[in-house]
Amino acid sequence: MCRWLGYSGDPIRPEELLYQPARSLIEQSKSHAPDVAIANGDGYGLGWYGTGERPGLFRSASPAWGDRNLREISAQLRSPLFLAHVRAATGTPVQQTNCHPFRHDDWMFVHNGFIDGFDRVRRELVLAVDPALFLGIEGSTDSELMFHLALTFGLAQDPLGGLERMAGFVEAVGRRAGVAHPLQMTVGVSDGVRLYAARYASGPEANTLFVSSSVRDVRLLYPENERFQHFSDEARVVVSEPLVDLPGLWREIPPGTAVVVQPGDDLEVPFRPQAP
Amino acid sequence: MCRWLGYSGDPIRPEELLYQPARSLIEQSKSHAPDVAIANGDGYGLGWYGTGERPGLFRSASPAWGDRNLREISAQLRSPLFLAHVRAATGTPVQQTNCHPFRHDDWMFVHNGFIDGFDRVRRELVLAVDPALFLGIEGSTDSELMFHLALTFGLAQDPLGGLERMAGFVEAVGRRAGVAHPLQMTVGVSDGVRLYAARYASGPEANTLFVSSSVRDVRLLYPENERFQHFSDEARVVVSEPLVDLPGLWREIPPGTAVVVQPGDDLEVPFRPQAP
Amino acid sequence: MCRWLGYSGDPIRPEELLYQPARSLIEQSKSHAPDVAIANGDGYGLGWYGTGERPGLFRSASPAWGDRNLREISAQLRSPLFLAHVRAATGTPVQQTNCHPFRHDDWMFVHNGFIDGFDRVRRELVLAVDPALFLGIEGSTDSELMFHLALTFGLAQDPLGGLERMAGFVEAVGRRAGVAHPLQMTVGVSDGVRLYAARYASGPEANTLFVSSSVRDVRLLYPENERFQHFSDEARVVVSEPLVDLPGLWREIPPGTAVVVQPGDDLEVPFRPQAP
Amino acid sequence: MCRWLGYSGDPIRPEELLYQPARSLIEQSKSHAPDVAIANGDGYGLGWYGTGERPGLFRSASPAWGDRNLREISAQLRSPLFLAHVRAATGTPVQQTNCHPFRHDDWMFVHNGFIDGFDRVRRELVLAVDPALFLGIEGSTDSELMFHLALTFGLAQDPLGGLERMAGFVEAVGRRAGVAHPLQMTVGVSDGVRLYAARYASGPEANTLFVSSSVRDVRLLYPENERFQHFSDEARVVVSEPLVDLPGLWREIPPGTAVVVQPGDDLEVPFRPQAP
Repeated sequence: MCRWLGYSGDPIRPEELLYQPARSLIEQSKSHAPDVAIANGDGYGLGWYGTGERPGLFRSASPAWGDRNLREISAQLRSPLFLAHVRAATGTPVQQTNCHPFRHDDWMFVHNGFIDGFDRVRRELVLAVDPALFLGIEGSTDSELMFHLALTFGLAQDPLGGLERMAGFVEAVGRRAGVAHPLQMTVGVSDGVRLYAARYASGPEANTLFVSSSVRDVRLLYPENERFQHFSDEARVVVSEPLVDLPGLWREIPPGTAVVVQPGDDLEVPFRPQAP
Repeated sequence: MCRWLGYSGDPIRPEELLYQPARSLIEQSKSHAPDVAIANGDGYGLGWYGTGERPGLFRSASPAWGDRNLREISAQLRSPLFLAHVRAATGTPVQQTNCHPFRHDDWMFVHNGFIDGFDRVRRELVLAVDPALFLGIEGSTDSELMFHLALTFGLAQDPLGGLERMAGFVEAVGRRAGVAHPLQMTVGVSDGVRLYAARYASGPEANTLFVSSSVRDVRLLYPENERFQHFSDEARVVVSEPLVDLPGLWREIPPGTAVVVQPGDDLEVPFRPQAP
Repeated sequence: MCRWLGYSGDPIRPEELLYQPARSLIEQSKSHAPDVAIANGDGYGLGWYGTGERPGLFRSASPAWGDRNLREISAQLRSPLFLAHVRAATGTPVQQTNCHPFRHDDWMFVHNGFIDGFDRVRRELVLAVDPALFLGIEGSTDSELMFHLALTFGLAQDPLGGLERMAGFVEAVGRRAGVAHPLQMTVGVSDGVRLYAARYASGPEANTLFVSSSVRDVRLLYPENERFQHFSDEARVVVSEPLVDLPGLWREIPPGTAVVVQPGDDLEVPFRPQAP
Repeated sequence: MCRWLGYSGDPIRPEELLYQPARSLIEQSKSHAPDVAIANGDGYGLGWYGTGERPGLFRSASPAWGDRNLREISAQLRSPLFLAHVRAATGTPVQQTNCHPFRHDDWMFVHNGFIDGFDRVRRELVLAVDPALFLGIEGSTDSELMFHLALTFGLAQDPLGGLERMAGFVEAVGRRAGVAHPLQMTVGVSDGVRLYAARYASGPEANTLFVSSSVRDVRLLYPENERFQHFSDEARVVVSEPLVDLPGLWREIPPGTAVVVQPGDDLEVPFRPQAP
């Protein structure tokens, strides 16, 4: 299991979400949850949209909690849309190329979960990646492969459709290989304009995913909280696990659901794996 | 807080203690204790006496749990006496020179604990190190400084005395600086012949330390356990925290006490800080 | 020997100087000079003044040439004043805390050179650091110590004077210890407003240092070079070694000389070590 | 280009070849050759046959020259057969899983050279790897892929034949993709009993490879050199580039040739790529 967050809104310094909240992502790198004694210490990554031609990407195989460069970078940058991730390896090597986000052109991708029985299906999944995208796979994780399958199945043209076809394909290959519940995932994807997030699992238990409530509503709930005065009305945070324990601040995204955070009204739609 | 272990006995592969027990040191690198959700993920070290002219030292700033080199090295070596350590940094940088064991000539040193108010006393402690030993300080931890103070105060000639004078000096300097309980420590020290271990704290709470019982007694308790058949009668393990939950296997070393594991009968004596 | 550069002018992306010139700093990390087969591969650092409250600092113990994060960061940032450094260790450990720039409040410092006989004088130099600054020394290099001595001797109030007193002190201590030529240095220092650079050696050979000519003059020399159209009139680059071989672009700073790059006319003055 | 060495003979400490000769492998990590200013600084590896059930493997993405752990390990181990490698990356990431030697069961493999036009042929080469071996590919180098192709084509049963079929296949795929000279290689392979080395290039220029002369002959040439008294009669070293400049010590292996270092007489045979 890993932990990730995505932010969309007025430009902020990523440190505001990575370091400052009570259960910030950096705290989550030290332990999954207050009662789960497992670290997300196998690397981290921050991908942000900003002033450059393409999104910036800063990844390292060191634990996030002790990394000085992450603290510096996240205090200096300002970005209106970023994805951050802390990794707990599930079998593949601890190395920079296995750290999230993964990037392809303007697209970035983070994942919490796993492909069950990955060793049994990995080769077939690799072969299904569009040969033109094959060279973009630099590491060895199931997550990077899921991203390249989604790209193969049209992510850039139809983001949620691409994800649904990826999920459908992974499930079909896994079940043929005798895996009961092939896929466990929350994913975050962005092109720099919208932030797409989906929660899905083949089995009955799905990793959690939350989206922050409307900042306007939150201000009404907590009129004295200075932090919320400073965020724009459109600002949204999508997280694997709440960053602070404020009632009414987080809304759980149901299993089998996707959200689209975007200028104007956000969307919430069913997420249904499809045969590609 | 950190975790460490020391072994003395017939030559074994370090992996037998680092990886194989239920609560092995590597498991302890993932969490302090089954109910304490804090990783010892800020580096590790293995120091061993073997066939070389001086002890070997293998240290890294990466988390121990995912490090392939540690697994390889600890499976290939055989050593009759070694010290291993997993680090949780308490303010100083995550870097190889801050990883334990520290080494000086034939001596190696590991520590779990801290000097309280270290920033207030650090300069005075550094100045007290024998100028001939000063250049041997490569990192910035309180632990390495404690080792060099103990060497300054005669560790090589009188190991427990050197440690007691170090503790007494650290307490005196700390109290002058207004620190109520300056020292918290379990330490392991060896010259390749004996393994010295001490448990002490200035205040009422002392970090735990355990020594394994006589292997002969343990065999009587667990006649069917193959692991114990293989260890020599003299084999002893000293640990911050038990490696397995077998009643009768571990004996807690009382606070304010030192043990000497050596050929022939081991010793257990009071540990009393002294003015140097 | 190391290599460094400093830039002051209109905000640019650091990659323009770190990666794009023929003999860019990254090329210099691969080899000191086209005919000197020694890498500056023991880490690197980039310190920049930007939008944050204090300068940003990004340092790593990896070779600069293969580091993806440095490439990303230097392509995303824009800064009007930055210092970059690639390190060739001269005896002290390869670790992040030994990488330049060093930072104290708003000040940053880079160095190419060494204190000769450092082991003989290190303790005395450490003791001379203002106790209030002592805890700021995190690594073990002569360079970081020179910075803290200069701060002790008034760098923040009188930058060139602080450097001259540091140099005078290092020379006095070295000579008492029997070192013929105690100091070899080019240094770059900044507070975010001015960029100070000095070239000095106790002996006859001084490491090189260059400053770029007036951009206006350079445009006259190379009217078709697009790069120079884009730099502001005030832009200056100070470097250990020229980044490109364009006649008239670089002016060597003579030994025993300091320059101050600042808004308005720059300064060039003698650099004379003083007794502190 | 990379550099590697293989040793077979009475057990020695690897440091004798890695550190002590004038142009030791560690010196070669600093620069390819005295007149070639390019570092092999993108990681290193040491694989050794010893007392463990399978060969030991110690690899790191750091430059070899400054790595303290390599110095420690190579001074503590004794091994009758080992392979060591220093890497200069040719496009693939600097990470541990891209460092040589690569290992499969008892087999280890090192390579100096490259597959030209690798991006154009990589997917086809990956697909040709035996599905049972596919999961053993952890990194992204051409070298690791060559090893797994050779294993696919029978390396374990017929080492030189497996290498020849790998080379023939790589050439066939490369030429179909329009690459004039697909393969450049010196390789070292061992099963712990024999050391196989081959030198081959599709084009006119082949990377160099040398084997040390009979120790008996060398002793006659240099009766006063203590180092040679200490090596056993059967000891041989295979290297990319000579470790010392002693006339008569090194014999160049001709292009298109393989050698087998083994108990009893060594072999030298033609190396001819074959269609698999």
